[in-house]
Amino acid sequence: MLKVGVVLSGCGVMDGSEIHEAVLTLYFLDKQGAEVVFMAPDLSFKAVDHLSGRETGEMRNVLVESARIARGKIRDIKEVKAAELDALILPGGFGAAKNLCDFASKGAGAAPHPEVARLVKEMHQFKKPIGAVCISPALIASIFKGTSITPLLTIGTDSSTAEALEKMNARHEPHSVHEISVDRENKIVSTPAYMLGQRISEVGSGIEKLVSEVLSLAREKAGAVR
Amino acid sequence: MLKVGVVLSGCGVMDGSEIHEAVLTLYFLDKQGAEVVFMAPDLSFKAVDHLSGRETGEMRNVLVESARIARGKIRDIKEVKAAELDALILPGGFGAAKNLCDFASKGAGAAPHPEVARLVKEMHQFKKPIGAVCISPALIASIFKGTSITPLLTIGTDSSTAEALEKMNARHEPHSVHEISVDRENKIVSTPAYMLGQRISEVGSGIEKLVSEVLSLAREKAGAVR
Repeated sequence: MLKVGVVLSGCGVMDGSEIHEAVLTLYFLDKQGAEVVFMAPDLSFKAVDHLSGRETGEMRNVLVESARIARGKIRDIKEVKAAELDALILPGGFGAAKNLCDFASKGAGAAPHPEVARLVKEMHQFKKPIGAVCISPALIASIFKGTSITPLLTIGTDSSTAEALEKMNARHEPHSVHEISVDRENKIVSTPAYMLGQRISEVGSGIEKLVSEVLSLAREKAGAVR
Repeated sequence: MLKVGVVLSGCGVMDGSEIHEAVLTLYFLDKQGAEVVFMAPDLSFKAVDHLSGRETGEMRNVLVESARIARGKIRDIKEVKAAELDALILPGGFGAAKNLCDFASKGAGAAPHPEVARLVKEMHQFKKPIGAVCISPALIASIFKGTSITPLLTIGTDSSTAEALEKMNARHEPHSVHEISVDRENKIVSTPAYMLGQRISEVGSGIEKLVSEVLSLAREKAGAVR
């Protein structure tokens, strides 16, 4: 059974993981027979009221709020090593751009959370596949910025976000919500999800393809090792 | 296009809606072409830390936290009338038994939230279908307790919960996580979901069937009216 890490960034599109993307990622992974290991960093963030769209002034904790999506079964990302995983998937939501890196405020000047960067780089070194959903390709670009690695990614069709990715030395290709971008060299798969989607079923169709491709790359890798 | 209300009770299995059940309900409704109207009551609840499983002492608001699952698009249930809906579905989670009624503390002595009871009774009077997932059949039983209506329901195989439902004058039949109970007379469909399920794909198979049956009953009704 393949073991896939899923990196959460809170619980709710405006200040954490996009809940639909996170749950559909889990659903398709489980349906396709993979075991999921949820993880998140242990850090504080400013809570956003999802009814009004405004910050409440309250601080919450990324790991504790992410545990809502994981039904309590979640680990601090700093304790997770690439050696125990076959693949890693990062759902989107503003949390990916505010808590896992600071792309939301810094754009192309973004820096990633050190433990997220450490695990993503380890996965890449081991040639294990990485899936990036929605805005998470911006996080991936911030991680490989300044290295010789130039990941091929999609965030859909938003030109200013795509330009920011290219400024971080990533390559961007436009895709529809139903499609995935596959960087076979770096084993990175991405899909636009709610960067473009209006309906959960559209978002689901892209995420289902991303999960299939990530598992297929992980099986190739596992097969090569055995 | 059929319009289906989905009643949320917060965001997280321990103090609100079970997130996977809520998202999968939305996913299958959207995939099968229905429009979803999210709603929740505007009331306070005691937040539970989903990492430790303990109450934090903090109060949160059901409508505001439910908005995380609904991506901000949610209404106060008191403003929603059965006349504008073709069907109603209630996902599970402890919120259904703590915020939408007090079954979690009172058992068969439970009383429902008045606006939830009002809407469910309106739907029933209009012969519009109702779907109840996981522990929500206990809420349904608490609503019809003391009336001549004796809904047929399933919460899976847990005998003490089933007994509590029967004390409230509901009829209970055991079902597996992959199955649904269909009360054709009262147009109530239920499935055990995480009352029994260990994996999200199992829970999804029951919810997918529940959504199909609810929409099929709603189409019969809509066809009969036109």
